[in-house]
Amino acid sequence: MATLQDISVAATINILSALAFLVAFAILRLQPFNDRVYFPKWYLKGIRGSPRRSGAFVSKFVNLDCRTYLRFLNWMPVALKMPEPELIDHAGLDSAVFIRIYLLGLKIFVPLAVLAFAVLVPVNWTGKSLQNIKDLTFSDIDKLSISNVPTGSNRFWAHIVMQYVFSFWTCYVLYKEYKIIATMRLHFIASENRRPDQFTVIVRNVPPDPDESVSEHIEHFFCVNHPDYYLTHRVVYNANKLAKLVEEKKSLQNWLTYYQNKYERNPEKKPTTKTGFCGLWGTNVDAVDHYAAKMEKLCEAEAEERERVITDPKAIMPAAFVSFKTRWGAAVCAQTQQSRNPTIWLTEWAPEPRDIYWDNLAIPYVELTIRRLLMAVAVFFLTFFFMIPIAFVQSIANIDGIEKVLPFLKSLMEMNVIKSFIQGFLPGIALKIFLILLPTILTIMSKIEGLISLSSLEQRTAGKYYLFILVNVFLGSIITGTAFQQLHKFINQSPTEIPKTVGVSIPMKATFFITYIMVDGWAGVAAEILRLVPLIMFHLKNAFLVKTEQDREQAMDPGCLNFSISEPRIQLYFLLGLVYAAVTPILLPFIIIFFSFAYMVFRHQIINVYDQKYESGAAFWPSVHQRVIIGLMISQLLLMGLLNTKDFSKSTPFLIVLPVLTFWFHRFCNGRFESAFVRFPLQEAMVKDTLERATEPNLNLKNYLQDAYIHPVFKGGEFERPEVIDEEENNPLVATKRSSYISSKHGSELSSEIEG
Amino acid sequence: MATLQDISVAATINILSALAFLVAFAILRLQPFNDRVYFPKWYLKGIRGSPRRSGAFVSKFVNLDCRTYLRFLNWMPVALKMPEPELIDHAGLDSAVFIRIYLLGLKIFVPLAVLAFAVLVPVNWTGKSLQNIKDLTFSDIDKLSISNVPTGSNRFWAHIVMQYVFSFWTCYVLYKEYKIIATMRLHFIASENRRPDQFTVIVRNVPPDPDESVSEHIEHFFCVNHPDYYLTHRVVYNANKLAKLVEEKKSLQNWLTYYQNKYERNPEKKPTTKTGFCGLWGTNVDAVDHYAAKMEKLCEAEAEERERVITDPKAIMPAAFVSFKTRWGAAVCAQTQQSRNPTIWLTEWAPEPRDIYWDNLAIPYVELTIRRLLMAVAVFFLTFFFMIPIAFVQSIANIDGIEKVLPFLKSLMEMNVIKSFIQGFLPGIALKIFLILLPTILTIMSKIEGLISLSSLEQRTAGKYYLFILVNVFLGSIITGTAFQQLHKFINQSPTEIPKTVGVSIPMKATFFITYIMVDGWAGVAAEILRLVPLIMFHLKNAFLVKTEQDREQAMDPGCLNFSISEPRIQLYFLLGLVYAAVTPILLPFIIIFFSFAYMVFRHQIINVYDQKYESGAAFWPSVHQRVIIGLMISQLLLMGLLNTKDFSKSTPFLIVLPVLTFWFHRFCNGRFESAFVRFPLQEAMVKDTLERATEPNLNLKNYLQDAYIHPVFKGGEFERPEVIDEEENNPLVATKRSSYISSKHGSELSSEIEG
Repeated sequence: MATLQDISVAATINILSALAFLVAFAILRLQPFNDRVYFPKWYLKGIRGSPRRSGAFVSKFVNLDCRTYLRFLNWMPVALKMPEPELIDHAGLDSAVFIRIYLLGLKIFVPLAVLAFAVLVPVNWTGKSLQNIKDLTFSDIDKLSISNVPTGSNRFWAHIVMQYVFSFWTCYVLYKEYKIIATMRLHFIASENRRPDQFTVIVRNVPPDPDESVSEHIEHFFCVNHPDYYLTHRVVYNANKLAKLVEEKKSLQNWLTYYQNKYERNPEKKPTTKTGFCGLWGTNVDAVDHYAAKMEKLCEAEAEERERVITDPKAIMPAAFVSFKTRWGAAVCAQTQQSRNPTIWLTEWAPEPRDIYWDNLAIPYVELTIRRLLMAVAVFFLTFFFMIPIAFVQSIANIDGIEKVLPFLKSLMEMNVIKSFIQGFLPGIALKIFLILLPTILTIMSKIEGLISLSSLEQRTAGKYYLFILVNVFLGSIITGTAFQQLHKFINQSPTEIPKTVGVSIPMKATFFITYIMVDGWAGVAAEILRLVPLIMFHLKNAFLVKTEQDREQAMDPGCLNFSISEPRIQLYFLLGLVYAAVTPILLPFIIIFFSFAYMVFRHQIINVYDQKYESGAAFWPSVHQRVIIGLMISQLLLMGLLNTKDFSKSTPFLIVLPVLTFWFHRFCNGRFESAFVRFPLQEAMVKDTLERATEPNLNLKNYLQDAYIHPVFKGGEFERPEVIDEEENNPLVATKRSSYISSKHGSELSSEIEG
Repeated sequence: MATLQDISVAATINILSALAFLVAFAILRLQPFNDRVYFPKWYLKGIRGSPRRSGAFVSKFVNLDCRTYLRFLNWMPVALKMPEPELIDHAGLDSAVFIRIYLLGLKIFVPLAVLAFAVLVPVNWTGKSLQNIKDLTFSDIDKLSISNVPTGSNRFWAHIVMQYVFSFWTCYVLYKEYKIIATMRLHFIASENRRPDQFTVIVRNVPPDPDESVSEHIEHFFCVNHPDYYLTHRVVYNANKLAKLVEEKKSLQNWLTYYQNKYERNPEKKPTTKTGFCGLWGTNVDAVDHYAAKMEKLCEAEAEERERVITDPKAIMPAAFVSFKTRWGAAVCAQTQQSRNPTIWLTEWAPEPRDIYWDNLAIPYVELTIRRLLMAVAVFFLTFFFMIPIAFVQSIANIDGIEKVLPFLKSLMEMNVIKSFIQGFLPGIALKIFLILLPTILTIMSKIEGLISLSSLEQRTAGKYYLFILVNVFLGSIITGTAFQQLHKFINQSPTEIPKTVGVSIPMKATFFITYIMVDGWAGVAAEILRLVPLIMFHLKNAFLVKTEQDREQAMDPGCLNFSISEPRIQLYFLLGLVYAAVTPILLPFIIIFFSFAYMVFRHQIINVYDQKYESGAAFWPSVHQRVIIGLMISQLLLMGLLNTKDFSKSTPFLIVLPVLTFWFHRFCNGRFESAFVRFPLQEAMVKDTLERATEPNLNLKNYLQDAYIHPVFKGGEFERPEVIDEEENNPLVATKRSSYISSKHGSELSSEIEG
């Protein structure tokens, strides 16, 4: 076990590196030429203009005002200053609720830490069991942990009582938070302006009809079964191939622009490229001509495909967006079963247009269930057996293997420096690459499952990632050995033994997790604010691709909160905090620092940087709640196991009550609040309908809904941004500098980029 | 292990006793004075008249036609003759589907038995492992079972392949059956005549309003939120106390009638009774006057209470039956969420009027979840720890204990005969009483859970009872020891050990279960058809209480299919059949005989005897399906465990796939069919609405629905039977003998008896 001194050293290093990141950020963000990297949100909103338009030449690129450098941490109070309602308006409910997860962490762990330090630390400290054992090495940290209490001591009652207090406090905070967020969501939905998805339902698995086209069949069905409310519908085209062509075209366009720029800057030398893969080999040709010709060919193919999709009846998928005259009608249709056969005419709320994952709209029911089964099995194997293929790759990715496959590298490989480099790094690299690819792999798995909205995709991926982290990071660090070995061990152990096995190792791993929190939590979050990759990418694009102001808008990569990756990682901190609260309370301050620091950083980021791809109205909260509950139950079971190994098994009846109560609390909360995240109350719909009828009696809803749900590739240039944002533009929070030209132009560009 | 001879002896005994029951039934049912015991259904339908009206005096009571006795089994073909559609018309869908459970058993197990005897019995028989071990006693039955295959033999592949075949066949049959029954249910609902519950939704947890009464609040809410469809509503009164008074009055009336009859038959001697408890002690009074006075007092109290319930606003519960103008409107309201707060304004389909459990209509949400938690804990303790209170009762219910409490019995107790009787029987009696009371206890627990319809109460009780049978009968018989000891053992064992522990004992218990099937399945079913208790009760009532024809109608106790008790017992046979199919196939013929015999008996009973209290439209099928699936998965896991103990652990990867696939199949089936049992498709509703508008444009629906949902105690004499039956009376399947007087009179009597 590490001593306090070791921890202090690690802390110093990590604090220093975090500070270094912060200082770098403070300096970089003040330079005007980085403005679009660190404040893209404001550009996208049209509130911030390009700094190049005015002032001296140098000051366009470098900030020369020294006083601003002195206040290098002043972004923190600024980030905290924006009140929450304004934040919701500015960044959307998803983002505002996401940073509330960090706040939830603070709400839970600050009182827990205070209590633990007031009660448990003295109890542990005076336990003195470690001082009696002379031959055991122990550190000061261990004196503060439960390890210092002698086995069978009645002092453990303190831990049991505190576990009760901790559990009740956590549940209380969770309940309050669930309630607040349900209210926020309902308020957000209620106060929203008219949006197409309020009137629209997606219907899937439309049965084929021999006499009618899909479109006619849908129209007839809804005219008959929702006669008073049906308004219009729009069938879904299978435009996956077309979307791919458009994507390809965009990349070609980039290359074309790059060579054109190169040629313009240096007109003497015509840029050339090679025709082979990635321009690496093949015959030399004139690059501009080559790409222009390629571009033309692609444009033709695209036009042809576009034509085919629109005219070919086989390109129409058995799914459609059905719109209703009132929100009430849509709410009714989304919540009811339409047909006798519950696997056809499936209706559910249409996600908002930006949120739709178009590829999955036409999967039949049987295929869907088979895909789910396969993916469930795949997740299981991925979680527990991922080490097997990696070990295989590692075994062939040694020097002999490479020499066999690529013999011409042999002489190079024999060099000592390179040899040792390969031997040292290659095995680790396979694992590292896997871990970097993991979220992508999990996202692909979720896509295969057939979810139809990006928000549900992200939620599902987060669930899978959480399982992976729980098994491989949490359990994997506590019990050494691969997940597969653990699984084997657990299967062959009695259920009562598992909490004991894990529980007994918990106190010993406290210092490891403290270091982990400092590296991943402190320095990692500080790195997030620096945005090194987008910074480099922006300047590369700026140098080679940007010609017009509009290109520069496109070169910005604001990024977004990646729920599927970030949320499971936060959950690990909840889990660690809850597990160690009663065992080694010294861990709690580190977690509190993580939560408060991350809260500030991400609040800054969602205000200034991130641009969310869609708005789900905090639909993810039930799963956040559920995973904190899982963490709580794990902590209760592990404490039970730990106390059992400490000759204190009389505590079991008291501690077994806690998970039961916690589970019941979870059911209770879900029954109370979950439907606010799933369904849409009729009362609400009726109120909005009535209001709208009164204020806008002559609204032409059909026109309004006409083009809302078109596959993004069909939208071309004439796409208009969603109504909400337009409304905001008319009543901006801050005076906008944007000219009408930029507004319309940039709107269309942005949206096509977002949805492409 | 028992030999084949032992089994034959047991079989002979049980077949003889079953035959004795059948002969007794054959003789008794032919006697005209038992006609109302064995054919009450026809009396209730008005198709069969009292046999006393015509013929010689003796032949009214005793059947003297010898020829009829010769054909004493001819009820069997008659029972099978009625085609299913007619059966549904005659006895309702619930009953018709219930006996299909037995048919399902036959469909599953006949092919299983054929296959098992063709493949597994030869494989086992030629295994010859038991002949090599000379010192082990083994029977002929064991030679046919898996015990006869030597450990590690490749013959086990046959069992694995057969387990696959069995599982797929079972799933195939289950799928087909689920589909058929879903279709039957939808057809039944679609072909039904107009019924109040098609238009009605029950709304619960109406929030209190300071300015309006509950009734006004409900009306306003639905007028606003369902403006086009809301028709009328009826609030629910808390009439539980009144119902109790009515119940009491009925019992008093019985005593009064009894004494009046006594007096009329013997006018010289005035009957007397004592005023104390049960007429056992106290002063002697004139019985008729005494009961008449009591009756009068009770009538007054009842009238007062009735007045109070109707006038007191506090007697109105925050729940109501809300009726809509169309089925579509009701379907919409039942399936959607009304209010922002998902715990108020809860709407769901109203059960049919007879199906409502009135006491539970006004439980608030929080209380409901707490009740569920408590009951879940209670079921757990009841299942695993029920032996503890029984052991306690047994320990004090010995001779010393009784002598202490009731010292005046001491001399009696000292007699040798009585002493040994008490010592022999008392301990067993406590357990026996508990087992008899168990369904009642479980029903009370389900009532506490707050379910609002009798059908859901029965389903929930069946689930609890199944758990109890599974743990205490199935596992309890295989592993000796109490459930608590098993639980302790299982908790301290690894999950992979449990199937091994159970699996290894499975073949050894085959003869025990064969005997169990013969006693409980064969003789028990034969006893069911004899109806000994209702027979005795009817003749007692007939002798003492019956004065008029109408009283005789009331004295009949047709009984009904008790889903909550019968279904879990059938499930035990499914479980046994599936578990033993691959292990000891010799068990299968016994199960097949049970299923076919029970099918005939219960088909006869539902045609001639049972009168269901309500009609749920086979809403119970998903749980039947689920429990067969559970049985199947248990059988797969146990075979895996068994083969592991037989040095054949290489089979594990092949067998572990089966439960995963079975579970997936279960999810698939539920996704495919379950909603047919839960929701009501809008398409269906629309079709019926349109049809009705066309055929009966002037229907006054409000009048029709006015009195449908009144608490039975308010109905008094003017209650009319549900529409369906009236329609049937106009187009009877068989010519009815019922005069119009009997029809109306008996209808009202019957219904008040049923609903009282």
